[in-house]
Amino acid sequence: MTPKSTNLANFKVGVDNVIFSVDMAQNRVLVLLVMRQGDPFSGQWSLPGTLVRQGESLEAAAYRILAEKIRFKNIYLEQLYTFGGPDRDPRESPDCFGVRYLSVSYFALVRFEEAQLIADGVTGIAWYPLERVPELAFDHHQILEYGYQRLRNKLEYSPVAFDVLPETFTLGDLYQLYTSVLGENFSDYSNFRTRLLKLGFLSDTGVKVSRGAGRPASLYRFNSESFALLKDKPMVFI
Amino acid sequence: MTPKSTNLANFKVGVDNVIFSVDMAQNRVLVLLVMRQGDPFSGQWSLPGTLVRQGESLEAAAYRILAEKIRFKNIYLEQLYTFGGPDRDPRESPDCFGVRYLSVSYFALVRFEEAQLIADGVTGIAWYPLERVPELAFDHHQILEYGYQRLRNKLEYSPVAFDVLPETFTLGDLYQLYTSVLGENFSDYSNFRTRLLKLGFLSDTGVKVSRGAGRPASLYRFNSESFALLKDKPMVFI
Repeated sequence: MTPKSTNLANFKVGVDNVIFSVDMAQNRVLVLLVMRQGDPFSGQWSLPGTLVRQGESLEAAAYRILAEKIRFKNIYLEQLYTFGGPDRDPRESPDCFGVRYLSVSYFALVRFEEAQLIADGVTGIAWYPLERVPELAFDHHQILEYGYQRLRNKLEYSPVAFDVLPETFTLGDLYQLYTSVLGENFSDYSNFRTRLLKLGFLSDTGVKVSRGAGRPASLYRFNSESFALLKDKPMVFI
Repeated sequence: MTPKSTNLANFKVGVDNVIFSVDMAQNRVLVLLVMRQGDPFSGQWSLPGTLVRQGESLEAAAYRILAEKIRFKNIYLEQLYTFGGPDRDPRESPDCFGVRYLSVSYFALVRFEEAQLIADGVTGIAWYPLERVPELAFDHHQILEYGYQRLRNKLEYSPVAFDVLPETFTLGDLYQLYTSVLGENFSDYSNFRTRLLKLGFLSDTGVKVSRGAGRPASLYRFNSESFALLKDKPMVFI
């Protein structure tokens, strides 16, 4: 009853990374793009990706491509979604390689100030503000959309914000990050501030800082030990 | 700079379904298992799965295997996770087929009373209570664990309970489902009841029903229109 193996599709497996960062100074959410230097889609922007090698795990492939594109101190990485439909890659055509190309996508967050782009041997690499992303190769626009939705969801119930903010930040910085991603209307500042402080995982460093006009604001730090105690409790941040 | 294509791994892609249901009468969470009838792991229990065919999407493959194993009226299905490390399938060995086997897993929920198992042409198929699951083929135990974690998480912030409960249910039935999955201590009944009613998407049908001893209890129905209005609002159910 098993289908003949000739009916089964043959695949190459790619890993594509949706790497987000936030430029706090400019108040912009950024995604890392690289310009493709080979066919198909040569010269077009795409998510940084690679094909999985013999003996290599999916996650190892995701880290390999990250290490080729940026230097970073800390990174948050998780699997995003697998895109594997027919006709997602022109190389599938019988006149080309005749195998399917499946993409396992990963979602990553890095701190903008800590990440250095590596341009060696590529024709282009750039942090693109989300609202200015150009046309992308393959179905990468769909993968990026999916990644952005994951970012929005995770801000609501998990501490991912602290993976992109500097180590110390004001509550205004935190609010600004949330509004950049979720839009101005997600919550007013005062409710947001009360809610976050009540969750109990932000530690006041005792240091105050001036951001332009207005009163000096306290610098906070994310307290991962306090958060760990809450980890199994369902919660919403906003 | 691109690796020679001989360095790239070749893959077959499988789809494995973690299909949960709940037997309300026995108060048990169930997972659908099938006995393998071919090598490798012939005669061992496994998640229902199949290999993706030429021209077939991942989701189509997931639905194909579902339709071969159970008849159902409604199903909830979403992609779970992709397992693709080296050495997860003995057929990878160079003396066998020498290609990697990647598994895209799907998470599914069906109503126990509406689902009929199809045993044609298989050596075994069964709803196993979670606490009695036997040793599974491949890394399917890990996939099942991942699926169970997804079920726990989704109960906290999404209306998946109403995909496995009968169409009308008492708040006691709903509470029983939550305790079967999350354990006795997740919340007391009175808080749970207040919280769920306050969320505003349960409609009282006006019908009361007796469950053994105790006062008759109201039958509720999940109101998907009311829920749709809340959909973009982050919330926790427990």
